[in-house]
Amino acid sequence: MSDKLTQLKEVLAEVADLQSAASVLGWDQQTYMPAGGSAARGQQLATVTKIAHQKATSQDVGALLNDLRTQYAGADPGTDDAALVRVASRDYDKAVRVPPDFVAEHAVVTTKAFEAWAEARSKADFAIFRPHLERVVELTKRYVSFFPPADHPYDILLDDYEPGMKTAEVQAIFRMLRPRQVELVKLIASRPPLNDKFLRRKYAEEKIWAFSGEVTRLFGYDWSRGRMDRAPHPFETSFSVNDVRITNRFEPEGPLLTLFSAMHEAGHAMYEQGVNAAFERTALAHGTSLAIHESQSRMWENIVGRSLAFWEYLYPRLKKTFGSQLDGIGLKAFHRAINKVQPSLIRVNADEATYNLHIMLRLELEIGMVEGAIAIRDLPEIWNTKMEEYLGVKPPNDAQGVLQDIHWSYGSIGYFSTYALGNLISAQLWEKINKDIGDLESQLRAGKFESLLDWLRKNIHRHGRKYDSQDLIQRLTGSKITPEPYIRYLSQKYSEIYGL
Amino acid sequence: MSDKLTQLKEVLAEVADLQSAASVLGWDQQTYMPAGGSAARGQQLATVTKIAHQKATSQDVGALLNDLRTQYAGADPGTDDAALVRVASRDYDKAVRVPPDFVAEHAVVTTKAFEAWAEARSKADFAIFRPHLERVVELTKRYVSFFPPADHPYDILLDDYEPGMKTAEVQAIFRMLRPRQVELVKLIASRPPLNDKFLRRKYAEEKIWAFSGEVTRLFGYDWSRGRMDRAPHPFETSFSVNDVRITNRFEPEGPLLTLFSAMHEAGHAMYEQGVNAAFERTALAHGTSLAIHESQSRMWENIVGRSLAFWEYLYPRLKKTFGSQLDGIGLKAFHRAINKVQPSLIRVNADEATYNLHIMLRLELEIGMVEGAIAIRDLPEIWNTKMEEYLGVKPPNDAQGVLQDIHWSYGSIGYFSTYALGNLISAQLWEKINKDIGDLESQLRAGKFESLLDWLRKNIHRHGRKYDSQDLIQRLTGSKITPEPYIRYLSQKYSEIYGL
Repeated sequence: MSDKLTQLKEVLAEVADLQSAASVLGWDQQTYMPAGGSAARGQQLATVTKIAHQKATSQDVGALLNDLRTQYAGADPGTDDAALVRVASRDYDKAVRVPPDFVAEHAVVTTKAFEAWAEARSKADFAIFRPHLERVVELTKRYVSFFPPADHPYDILLDDYEPGMKTAEVQAIFRMLRPRQVELVKLIASRPPLNDKFLRRKYAEEKIWAFSGEVTRLFGYDWSRGRMDRAPHPFETSFSVNDVRITNRFEPEGPLLTLFSAMHEAGHAMYEQGVNAAFERTALAHGTSLAIHESQSRMWENIVGRSLAFWEYLYPRLKKTFGSQLDGIGLKAFHRAINKVQPSLIRVNADEATYNLHIMLRLELEIGMVEGAIAIRDLPEIWNTKMEEYLGVKPPNDAQGVLQDIHWSYGSIGYFSTYALGNLISAQLWEKINKDIGDLESQLRAGKFESLLDWLRKNIHRHGRKYDSQDLIQRLTGSKITPEPYIRYLSQKYSEIYGL
Repeated sequence: MSDKLTQLKEVLAEVADLQSAASVLGWDQQTYMPAGGSAARGQQLATVTKIAHQKATSQDVGALLNDLRTQYAGADPGTDDAALVRVASRDYDKAVRVPPDFVAEHAVVTTKAFEAWAEARSKADFAIFRPHLERVVELTKRYVSFFPPADHPYDILLDDYEPGMKTAEVQAIFRMLRPRQVELVKLIASRPPLNDKFLRRKYAEEKIWAFSGEVTRLFGYDWSRGRMDRAPHPFETSFSVNDVRITNRFEPEGPLLTLFSAMHEAGHAMYEQGVNAAFERTALAHGTSLAIHESQSRMWENIVGRSLAFWEYLYPRLKKTFGSQLDGIGLKAFHRAINKVQPSLIRVNADEATYNLHIMLRLELEIGMVEGAIAIRDLPEIWNTKMEEYLGVKPPNDAQGVLQDIHWSYGSIGYFSTYALGNLISAQLWEKINKDIGDLESQLRAGKFESLLDWLRKNIHRHGRKYDSQDLIQRLTGSKITPEPYIRYLSQKYSEIYGL
């Protein structure tokens, strides 16, 4: 290893340690921190992330990367070291473009915008949030201006969550997907509704919590390198490849959601636990993009976790735990219930058939805001119109409409489409995995997940950030991200469930 | 406020944030971290503490302090700003004396020494630990050599835990204390032993845990700015004045120890919660010394928590929670049992009458090691001889003798005497508090602690590190730390309990 590379790795290791420390502070903030600790925690997080940013953007790092880029210019781009230089350079080039003053201003604006959003949502009054969102969008445009012109200004934003992905690519994918998915939803809506009332009976919190933990263990989430704690929202966070935690919650009005959230977060966590340990504390550590991450979580939650094959294994065990709640409910009825399609107002509660439509709507609005084609004051109306067009439902107020998501309040514009891309990728990978593992379905039926997890580890997890998402999917499936497999997956699944 | 002072405060605030971040990492390590996270956590802690140290010892800080010392040379030393300059200067002067290479070597040596100690203790074989302790003592002497000569080399070590305290002062105090305490223990040993078997009955863990939490709340520990978690050892840790946490454990063979540990740690925590909020993120934040800290924990645990007055209030409540376990046991019998004196081998289990004797033995050995008067190979024998002399018990092996404490393995030489000084200070303060609050005992009898906590807040807690321990005690009681009040306290307490 070159001396310069060793030096770079030493600095980046410290940056990674500081980022991990910040992640621990953030995890504690969401799980155990007493209410009083909030203000000091904000200061601690600001200091730790500021120092991490200073170190990551120092002139020393810039000079090392300059030399290393020259040195690795002719090297095999497939080696880990070449990938490290490439990814670290990209991180550096992006980070140095954003002036510290802007970062500070952004923090102030979004802190206020978050408070205004929370108030606006609780009062279902968009007017409260509107001036703040206008400033957020202004800042977003300013952020875009720090970078060289792209094909589309939104490319700059997308790139933060999905490196290398272009707006035009996502739009092309969604253009193919939307009519097919709208059509499917309409077809399902013409069938008699399914009964899922028994899913909302009273299930004991401690039992469903323990059951959920056991299912993640069965999948292959390594509890000697992880844990599950209570938090207001389920999430996954990683402090090293050997300390990858998930959080979860219990909602009495939807008690089994705890189980599906656990599967989802364990999907993220197994990805992080599977990254090559040699990448620890380098720019190649962690998952490569939000869409690939989401493909893992959605695969375990939906393709595996809501499949009939797996529930042939799991349902007798669930019935043993909750005999009376599921009395008289057969496997098929249960499986149909957990896959019920119901166009609804709220994205986070959406089923697999409707979820992507919520995302497409958001992407269109975000692009419109960034282009300036959509004025912020018109957002609620446009939102409601599109909801009716795509999903056939109309929000009774803005709390259940344009105000429902937190993302814009903290300046996160460019994020949403990765959720839908993750869904598509999960199905695209699933077709390939089924070619490679012939008896996968019978393995699910037996509660066996070693082959599946091995495949994911070998083909996706271990690579960390070595390959960008499109390259990775191309390598594995022979084509870039495409909606066809997901449409096939949905069509087949709902044909069986709804007898289409 | 001068510009230079503002600048200094800005840097120290970042140092404080990093130290708090390290404390969160440490707390998590002891409470929730999965086993796999250990190695990465070590790296994260090393990086965060290294950067904190670099910032705290930077030339900029040195120059600012130089200027500020000149500026505040003639100022009223009683102002907060003057105290800040004084304490920050002392911290800086100590920190810059220790070369980073030494810190790194010390970390390596003590990591190995800790492992060897754990193995040696589990095998009751001092020979395994001996070469490591020899290196630790060598390093300790080297550490002393970085500082200007003191009256005694041990002064340098003591000063890290008890700023300003001299070895000769501690020796003088202990010389007065030891014969009186040995005499008392002998007198008690001549009395018939007390029955405390019912303390080791089966008490439900969750109930004693909840009861312990309630008692800390009753004392005044603010749970909106704190919490109690399970850890291998009870401790208190503070991330800000508004986030001060304690840990606790449950041991089936001594179930009520959880209650007394909670009182002890809450005593530490109330101190930290009471520091002037204006001192946050400055050198004046946190408690002023380990002895003052221990005076708070021991006061709440022992003087309050094992008093007959308080148990008049608490015992009916404990009996309501644990009716069958305490069946037929009256208040007096219970009170005698929780105050039973029994010379024993292990410091952490020692009662109030014997505890300080364990400490004196350790201080004598530490001074001997640092002076070179005691060879490490002779430690076990000297230990055993002194145990017989002071306590009348002889360790059957080194695990229950010289190997019992963790401190030396991580290089903590100079720490022990603060435990005993804390006991003495608690009684010295208690006499003063009883003069100021005439009806304190009847307040305890009614479970009222507002006046007591107010007194401690006003006279001790809020000052943070503004006054060193001897100055603080002198200001409050009219004399420096003295053993007389503690001897009076013990004599009176045990006269009543043992009918001496």
